[in-house]
Amino acid sequence: MNNCLKTIFNRKSVRSFTSHDVSIELLEELARVGMAAPSARNLQPWAFVIITNRSTLDALAERLPYAKMLFDAPAAIVVCGDLSKAGDSPEGYWVQDCSAATQNILLAAEALGLGAVWTGVHPRTDRVTTVKDVLKLPDNIIPLNVIPIGYPKGEHQPKNKFKAENIHWQKW
Amino acid sequence: MNNCLKTIFNRKSVRSFTSHDVSIELLEELARVGMAAPSARNLQPWAFVIITNRSTLDALAERLPYAKMLFDAPAAIVVCGDLSKAGDSPEGYWVQDCSAATQNILLAAEALGLGAVWTGVHPRTDRVTTVKDVLKLPDNIIPLNVIPIGYPKGEHQPKNKFKAENIHWQKW
Repeated sequence: MNNCLKTIFNRKSVRSFTSHDVSIELLEELARVGMAAPSARNLQPWAFVIITNRSTLDALAERLPYAKMLFDAPAAIVVCGDLSKAGDSPEGYWVQDCSAATQNILLAAEALGLGAVWTGVHPRTDRVTTVKDVLKLPDNIIPLNVIPIGYPKGEHQPKNKFKAENIHWQKW
Repeated sequence: MNNCLKTIFNRKSVRSFTSHDVSIELLEELARVGMAAPSARNLQPWAFVIITNRSTLDALAERLPYAKMLFDAPAAIVVCGDLSKAGDSPEGYWVQDCSAATQNILLAAEALGLGAVWTGVHPRTDRVTTVKDVLKLPDNIIPLNVIPIGYPKGEHQPKNKFKAENIHWQKW
């Protein structure tokens, strides 16, 4: 099978990490693959906050209900929408663009031997407020998610989610 | 460079296609990689309509303002949200899940030597209505986009969209 297809099928949500740090270079590479995503009218309405500070990771772990694995993760990337770059596009488009960027990051993490997991923030306003507060995000920057990143601890198997009934030919 | 990272950086929006058909097997494989995406609470709130009927492709091309390349494309996949599977998740989550599935499809197309382009539908209500009408989608099925697919005609270069100022360390 093509290597990239293999990576797509092998990607899994990794929620436990060894104590090994992830290098600055690899974290920058992950932000770089995020920027390779497509975006509506090529507006690229995104920004990436990379976190390796223990105290910041812990502050997010304490206050986000589904991101407790940040206590163990050596790093995280927060994928944000930048509303100042979203033009007059419908609200939903920056979310789609940033979701594509996120998927690039998750696949690249898998390809590089890292583990990662998408923990949702927007549109839950309490979580958005928390992340904006901890990271001092300006008004126009909306955190879509927090992605804890590290080297996987233990075995992680991808789920087989194929369902033939999800495919329709020609029309419904 | 790792093959999957190479595919991520090489992916581009392809809007012109040769007259070669795309096999049923490859189109099914693209829907299969879509289902390998992560989803909030693993709800998998998606469905995929694969179109190869000339008259259906033409009907969409005629009525969608930014999908005129469907006149030349031998196939398309419509990635849809299935609201009946979205549970009580916030509205935005199925959009994020289906966007991740879409990015998987675009990357797999690139990896398989195909060309594809994401043309936006939801949340533009006129486009949603058009696609629902042409494809006879039930009320709970919302088309997120239409992805024309074929073999690329001519040269297509990926954009370099890296901007150092999009990366922030530790906080804003």
